[in-house]
Amino acid sequence: MDAVQAANSGHPGAPMGMADIAEVLWRDYLKHNPGNPGWADRDRFVLSNGHGSMLLYSLLHLTGYADFPIEELRNFRQLGYRTAGHPEYEAGGPVETTTGPLGQGVANAVGMAMAERMLAARFNQPGHEIVDHRTWVFLGDGCLMEGISHEACSLAGTLKLGKLICFYDDNSISIDGEVSGWFTDVTPQRFDAYGWQVIDNVDGHDAVAIAAAIDAAVADPDRPSIICCKTVIGSGAPNKQGTASTHGAPLGDEEVAAARKSLGWEAAPFKIPAEIANAWDGRTRGAAEENAWNERFAAYNDAHPELAAEFARRVAGKRPRGWCQHADSAIAEIDSEAGKMATRQASLRALNAYAPFLPEMVGGSADLTGSNLTKHDGSVPVSGDDAGGNYVWFGVREFGMTAICNGLSLHGGFIPYSGTFLTFSDYSRNALRMAALMKLQNILVYTHDSIGLGEDGPTHQPVEHTASLRLMPNMSVWRPCDTVETAVAWRYAIENETGPTSLVLTRQGVPHQKRAAPQIAAIARGGYVLKECDGTPDVLLIATGSEVALVMDAADELTDNGVRVRVVSMPSTDVFDAQDKSYRESVIPENVSARVAVEAGVTDGWWRYVGPEGRVIGLDRFGESAPANELFEHFGFTTDNVVAVAKELLN
Amino acid sequence: MDAVQAANSGHPGAPMGMADIAEVLWRDYLKHNPGNPGWADRDRFVLSNGHGSMLLYSLLHLTGYADFPIEELRNFRQLGYRTAGHPEYEAGGPVETTTGPLGQGVANAVGMAMAERMLAARFNQPGHEIVDHRTWVFLGDGCLMEGISHEACSLAGTLKLGKLICFYDDNSISIDGEVSGWFTDVTPQRFDAYGWQVIDNVDGHDAVAIAAAIDAAVADPDRPSIICCKTVIGSGAPNKQGTASTHGAPLGDEEVAAARKSLGWEAAPFKIPAEIANAWDGRTRGAAEENAWNERFAAYNDAHPELAAEFARRVAGKRPRGWCQHADSAIAEIDSEAGKMATRQASLRALNAYAPFLPEMVGGSADLTGSNLTKHDGSVPVSGDDAGGNYVWFGVREFGMTAICNGLSLHGGFIPYSGTFLTFSDYSRNALRMAALMKLQNILVYTHDSIGLGEDGPTHQPVEHTASLRLMPNMSVWRPCDTVETAVAWRYAIENETGPTSLVLTRQGVPHQKRAAPQIAAIARGGYVLKECDGTPDVLLIATGSEVALVMDAADELTDNGVRVRVVSMPSTDVFDAQDKSYRESVIPENVSARVAVEAGVTDGWWRYVGPEGRVIGLDRFGESAPANELFEHFGFTTDNVVAVAKELLN
Repeated sequence: MDAVQAANSGHPGAPMGMADIAEVLWRDYLKHNPGNPGWADRDRFVLSNGHGSMLLYSLLHLTGYADFPIEELRNFRQLGYRTAGHPEYEAGGPVETTTGPLGQGVANAVGMAMAERMLAARFNQPGHEIVDHRTWVFLGDGCLMEGISHEACSLAGTLKLGKLICFYDDNSISIDGEVSGWFTDVTPQRFDAYGWQVIDNVDGHDAVAIAAAIDAAVADPDRPSIICCKTVIGSGAPNKQGTASTHGAPLGDEEVAAARKSLGWEAAPFKIPAEIANAWDGRTRGAAEENAWNERFAAYNDAHPELAAEFARRVAGKRPRGWCQHADSAIAEIDSEAGKMATRQASLRALNAYAPFLPEMVGGSADLTGSNLTKHDGSVPVSGDDAGGNYVWFGVREFGMTAICNGLSLHGGFIPYSGTFLTFSDYSRNALRMAALMKLQNILVYTHDSIGLGEDGPTHQPVEHTASLRLMPNMSVWRPCDTVETAVAWRYAIENETGPTSLVLTRQGVPHQKRAAPQIAAIARGGYVLKECDGTPDVLLIATGSEVALVMDAADELTDNGVRVRVVSMPSTDVFDAQDKSYRESVIPENVSARVAVEAGVTDGWWRYVGPEGRVIGLDRFGESAPANELFEHFGFTTDNVVAVAKELLN
Repeated sequence: MDAVQAANSGHPGAPMGMADIAEVLWRDYLKHNPGNPGWADRDRFVLSNGHGSMLLYSLLHLTGYADFPIEELRNFRQLGYRTAGHPEYEAGGPVETTTGPLGQGVANAVGMAMAERMLAARFNQPGHEIVDHRTWVFLGDGCLMEGISHEACSLAGTLKLGKLICFYDDNSISIDGEVSGWFTDVTPQRFDAYGWQVIDNVDGHDAVAIAAAIDAAVADPDRPSIICCKTVIGSGAPNKQGTASTHGAPLGDEEVAAARKSLGWEAAPFKIPAEIANAWDGRTRGAAEENAWNERFAAYNDAHPELAAEFARRVAGKRPRGWCQHADSAIAEIDSEAGKMATRQASLRALNAYAPFLPEMVGGSADLTGSNLTKHDGSVPVSGDDAGGNYVWFGVREFGMTAICNGLSLHGGFIPYSGTFLTFSDYSRNALRMAALMKLQNILVYTHDSIGLGEDGPTHQPVEHTASLRLMPNMSVWRPCDTVETAVAWRYAIENETGPTSLVLTRQGVPHQKRAAPQIAAIARGGYVLKECDGTPDVLLIATGSEVALVMDAADELTDNGVRVRVVSMPSTDVFDAQDKSYRESVIPENVSARVAVEAGVTDGWWRYVGPEGRVIGLDRFGESAPANELFEHFGFTTDNVVAVAKELLN
């Protein structure tokens, strides 16, 4: 991307100065778009059983969305069309979230309903209910079997998300056939146990019954509702309805003909009779509702101009004026403190610096608040009775938490961040993938990032996780080495609006590294020279996180032995890879072939940095339960070993 | 490992001929150990809330396990001791499964209880109940919040696992504090909805009440039971009990003194008064129970010698006599068929060849049976009323399925395999990790392995997954290119008793590759020369799975252009990496620097094979929804592109 693009998008891949341009552009934007939050208060709809995508596309077409001409339906699942096999979210598009991986849609919806409730608590004023909308969900047996539905729906009950309304498409069929062989839950009882309103025994083919159920759901402000609809899969296809054969495979010409006959449908394929098209067309009504809300918002703007501007800013996803200056100052201050602490503590320090400036930040932890250090001084818990806070007790629900944060991000108005131990990123891995696929801002605070976790042992010691997160397209991964790199990593995460960012943090203390101003600026480029030598280096030492201090010590020892050593700190390989070639060459020059990478994790990803003549000091096995310092010693993460490996390379 | 070790362990990293030696050794073993299945019928105990590991260690010590002297307890969480922070499974050791990652212990237990039921159905005879034991579980709020508890416990209800008995340690506290802020489920109602027997309102500090609850649990043969015990966390520590501060942190000297006083405990630290030690010592009773079972088994052996030998073989995890010959013949036959088909179909072909010979194989799918092709001709479904089968309808529960298969493997008597789409390996990732950590045999059938999945789109198209699985220590990953490599991969998986094996399979058809006998034998080495040229190659083309046929075509075209091309097929990088250096050098010689790797996934892992002068044709972004052939074209997986890249390298 060029500089203006970079600035415009706020993407921090560019040198940090670009962010200043972005801020100028943003002031310009505000000048021309005073209080224009779009239709932020629209209802949200989530098709959690995303394989029914054609239902959604058909409705988008019938109701009159501009980008869903009949050509889109004709070209279902073809390259270059928006009618993918499973619904795909695009920023500003009509699909509210990407679904297909079962159970995640309803978890996204829980996040959306939380966002509504929290924005309403923050912004609504007497006589001005500018936030007042519902989140509607379709879900099926598959979603209900997936564990994430338990996590998300349980929390929705605790948080009393009364504006969340789910339709359970209870057709008794999943891909393998009649679900009675593998799914015998009494689902109404299950949801009653979560504190939901259960509206049971609704005929899903009876519009009057469904309307009555919706009325009942809407009438309960304190409980999420599940409307259990008995349905027949493939209803209308007289010979195949009610069987698994209507799930994925085409009906076939014969059954299509029979269905047309049974439904009395005589129009040609992809031709919609005018009276039906007119009856479905929702453009006039939609425009009226949008205009009515715009008028309400204008009145709100008159009565509460500062709140209205703040609301507009929040839902536009723009950071407040002065952010760049604020962040620059915070980083300078953190550097001046020269704190020696674990990077998880440095993360809390950064949060305390940034969060007061960014009320859109909403955080939480999967029951590890005191370990992840995600609760900053300005954190106020959200509860079922009070949504005015900014901190969510997610409970032990990593997957649900991450998918809920995707929902907060999709809804708009929030920058979500959430914490767990790095090893449990496994539990939420497909939600991370969905954030990356949808290009959603979602900040993951992953503490206890290596064998440095110590006594809790190998189940809790990540080995392959950092490398594995780096493999995910659009996922940015940072493993900072001290307070300053941590503050820059947090800043990157806050400015990275087009994808998730994983912050990989130590449990144990690390020293502060001394840097000149250009070095501090260079952290944002993902990799940079932390320690330079005179002339062409004999050897490059590359490290991340807790291993940076180790290679700095090794560099000192090698220097004392007359070796010319350059140390490269590489907090983010993906950001470094995105730099131009000349910058990368200036950090890791081709003509220095003696290179050693050190990271307390699997070695696989480092070979392309060290080359065939280089070495990687890593850990290609699981850890052990013991004090951290003993483990680092045991597994060869010592100054002596780094020095020995470097010397071996040079001989 | 040396040849005998390799043969002994049945580990197929060695050339296939070694397996013959293994078979000789096994015949020898059977001769000396007729009908010696150990105490296969012992009850199992799972501490699903694994952070309470000291409870388990204390009981192991008190009851008299040989390897738990008091020194182990003194050295809690120290290097070289077995008292890790979280309990760790070792084959033959007293800990039945590794726990810590919450929710997985109870899922393992569901697998153990299934194993008991299935073995009983297969082996018990009138008057000879040689399999009749229970699986006991401790679990806490954390396990119950995790989604996997929903998946596993729901299925346990459907399968009527009446010998599964869980104790819910309901202490109202998790790490973040009182759970009322984030966990308000009515758990008894939830489990009632799963079809469990719920024994509610038990005082967890009242031994008489607990004994009565156990009696009630044991009395119900058709429903798993959950005994809900109200407890006080840290009970006995007068000032801290009932608070989160007793969860992980040490009590401190003062509170320890207070607890000693309140409990009336006067013995020195780590000194157990003789009367208490004697009362707890279970060695005599344990030996008597084991002997009684051994006598029952001897009687069974007299009455049903063939069944007894088969039972002994099954629980010893030894393959039947003649396995090597059978597998050799199957592979030869599959090669002679020269079938052109998707490797998922080739997987079914291999299953049909091997499974009839291996009644210990138990399979299933997460509701994708017809897509994963996991149900072979001899598959018989397991149901709540009949456990005599070998196929499990797991429903849409990937994480639960994988952890349940870990439980089947831990119990013994089974080789579990299970299927889903590769992309949903994400959902079960931490259960894969636990299989790898515990060195458990668990075969993962991952179909629809790339953009070749086509129309279902990017949510369902794996990109980073194969590379990501390869990062996990002890996980073997195979991505075979045709029917023959698939049959060899399955054989590897069946013989790999010391870790999980992922079989990464195409949705779409691939051609059969012609091979000479030594090439077929070389497949088992993970990577081998599939197409050779005269003299030193100008260029190496390395590929896996569906891209092998592509590079074979490109090789033909390059050969026609006078380029000397060697094609390396690399179905398993981890097995190839484990070969000796001379073999690896014979396949990928150092002096051929023009190397191109082709795989329809992220490129990161391939750089160390192609080196700095090589190229990788891969996909470092998410896919699209379109027909597979269009996507391969769109993303550059074409003969033309491979030829062009190779030529560019040579110029």
